[in-house]
Amino acid sequence: MNPQDTPLTRLRAGHERSVLELLRRHGPLTRAALGRHSGLSRTTLYDIVGSLVARGAVVAAPPGAGERRRGRPVETLSLNPDAGLAVGVDFARRAVHVAAVNVAHEPIGSASAPHPARLPWAERVALAERLIGSLAGGALRLDALDAIGIGLVGPVSQQDAGESELEPVALLRERFGVPVLVDNNTRLAALAEATWGAGAGAPDVLYLRLSHGVGGGLVVGGALHRGPRGLSGEFGHVVVEPGGRACECGGVGCLETVASLGAVLAAFHAEAGGPAPDLDRLLDAAGSTGEGPEVVAARAVLAEVGERVGAVLAAACQVVGPGLVVLGGELARAGEALTRHVQRAIEARVMPTSRRHVALRRATLGEAGGALGGIALVLHGPASPGGEAANGPG
Amino acid sequence: MNPQDTPLTRLRAGHERSVLELLRRHGPLTRAALGRHSGLSRTTLYDIVGSLVARGAVVAAPPGAGERRRGRPVETLSLNPDAGLAVGVDFARRAVHVAAVNVAHEPIGSASAPHPARLPWAERVALAERLIGSLAGGALRLDALDAIGIGLVGPVSQQDAGESELEPVALLRERFGVPVLVDNNTRLAALAEATWGAGAGAPDVLYLRLSHGVGGGLVVGGALHRGPRGLSGEFGHVVVEPGGRACECGGVGCLETVASLGAVLAAFHAEAGGPAPDLDRLLDAAGSTGEGPEVVAARAVLAEVGERVGAVLAAACQVVGPGLVVLGGELARAGEALTRHVQRAIEARVMPTSRRHVALRRATLGEAGGALGGIALVLHGPASPGGEAANGPG
Repeated sequence: MNPQDTPLTRLRAGHERSVLELLRRHGPLTRAALGRHSGLSRTTLYDIVGSLVARGAVVAAPPGAGERRRGRPVETLSLNPDAGLAVGVDFARRAVHVAAVNVAHEPIGSASAPHPARLPWAERVALAERLIGSLAGGALRLDALDAIGIGLVGPVSQQDAGESELEPVALLRERFGVPVLVDNNTRLAALAEATWGAGAGAPDVLYLRLSHGVGGGLVVGGALHRGPRGLSGEFGHVVVEPGGRACECGGVGCLETVASLGAVLAAFHAEAGGPAPDLDRLLDAAGSTGEGPEVVAARAVLAEVGERVGAVLAAACQVVGPGLVVLGGELARAGEALTRHVQRAIEARVMPTSRRHVALRRATLGEAGGALGGIALVLHGPASPGGEAANGPG
Repeated sequence: MNPQDTPLTRLRAGHERSVLELLRRHGPLTRAALGRHSGLSRTTLYDIVGSLVARGAVVAAPPGAGERRRGRPVETLSLNPDAGLAVGVDFARRAVHVAAVNVAHEPIGSASAPHPARLPWAERVALAERLIGSLAGGALRLDALDAIGIGLVGPVSQQDAGESELEPVALLRERFGVPVLVDNNTRLAALAEATWGAGAGAPDVLYLRLSHGVGGGLVVGGALHRGPRGLSGEFGHVVVEPGGRACECGGVGCLETVASLGAVLAAFHAEAGGPAPDLDRLLDAAGSTGEGPEVVAARAVLAEVGERVGAVLAAACQVVGPGLVVLGGELARAGEALTRHVQRAIEARVMPTSRRHVALRRATLGEAGGALGGIALVLHGPASPGGEAANGPG
């Protein structure tokens, strides 16, 4: 338990959150108005506001000309747009992405930096710290920070977050002195898309990321579904080719073996020949209106991948109900050249009554998705229907 | 809106629920003890208890010898085991099943009756009424009934329950004067298994019913997941044979086309020859230790079905996370002869890290499952993460 986590400090934290919520809802307020809305005593309010001002979350401004009344000028209190409330960090394999929202729940900004694979955690956390420090042009204040939400590669369960004391969690908690929530970074991207991106407002979102690996996430009723052991949303390891190629997961014939960037580029190379292709060459060819062999090959490869991806998504729609499907990851940059095949395969395979209730959209948050999902995890709280909840400090 | 649904009647209903909950938790209590625990005034409590006694939910008993004190003997109040709190009705295609729990949340009993297909709703509801009346040896009292939960065949969405005024909902509401909640009967069987059956205590349950049709239900975080338009849990219409047989749903090659009772018996007939088989003949052959052609055919058919079912369940486990899978419906009576193939197929197809987290069990509630699920719907309330909620009266 955090030594500062006593009933009294929790009560105080609750009062602070109420005051911030009132300023978020009403905009700038006088102390008197804050007192009326919050129901806090004058003394308590004086104390709470004083602490929020000292920590930079709230700024006191002299009254505008229009608001001046007879007698002593009345100060108004408002939220400081440079005060960070929640920070999200995505520790991807070869890059760190950070993002933050201020006490008004507005985005402060995001930043990324690549790094070599397998960089030690201490250096990756230090990199995250530097990136956070660069937000808001270096003016970001963190004295009012509520929590940090981080995304990690691979399955993450409550055990990982709490008991086994993951290194990045411990390092960040020590450095920032706030709770650190953790989840799989692809699942966090799903939550971010469902909160602010292509799935904003949809109760249920199936998110599939087509990248070096193929992963996904499931948002059910607006909340991230983690599943037992944090193993939900693993669309990449649904078997599409029984007896097919060996997969990194240890299985055989998984969707990832035919739809990962590596598999797709290899298939393109096998069809088109020439030097080993990169993604841009594939996407350029697929987007071209020509009929050259490379263009034909690119179209055929994306049609095949789209069909496989659509079959898996159709099964997922049958299981959780048809809804909004969001496609992310580098391969989704192919756009229509890929998505029309995915859409067709989904429609051909879901129940006819479900067909008109499936919608397919491309992810809109790009590589900031994981970090934004970390913020969403902090703002939504770690509740998770049906799974183990993400966990704060032990 | 129900004309009796005013703030005052709601407040009163809340007090009644509190009193019943206290008697459930503490067992028989005196009026004085009820007053202390409930915090209700003497007058209010007198009124509430009087009404509960008049309606048969609560019985007043003279004090036992040991409880007699000096002065006037003190009456104790206890729950009436014959007072129904919630009734569940499953309107299956050719039968009505009912079940009830009393105010103590204990099962009062269940009853079923077959009827010809396509019987008009008025007659099916009348049949349900007679069955309900037969519970508790005819001693069931319904004056304290909270709500009725009913299961219907086919997709059920909020629109169906509320706005379009389904006939059985309207008839039952008129007859019993209480809210009528509604959901798909297979999904209700899933909820019942997750609440009292093979999945009791598991947060996430995948329920698959292998019967004349192949359906299912998904319980996530202890609550039924309905999905948009009530179309979740449709495992029977995941495509397992692209370009295969036409399915009743309008699709092609669905699991139902190879795993429904009809399809399984047809496959058995094709292998074994002889007169058209029924399920008992298939199950007898599959359970036999012999090596005759019929026995070999039965084993082969169940192995094939088990493989197909397992493949669909494996994909479902990848989507929502590995957890507890419950197999119900008549075909599940085959037991090990079927389930070992299902288990093997699931294990072969889920990610290796997920394998040890998947458990397969047979449903335990039998044909009463749908009606029990109706009760669970009433007791849990209609909240549903991610979908449209089941609905009370409009």
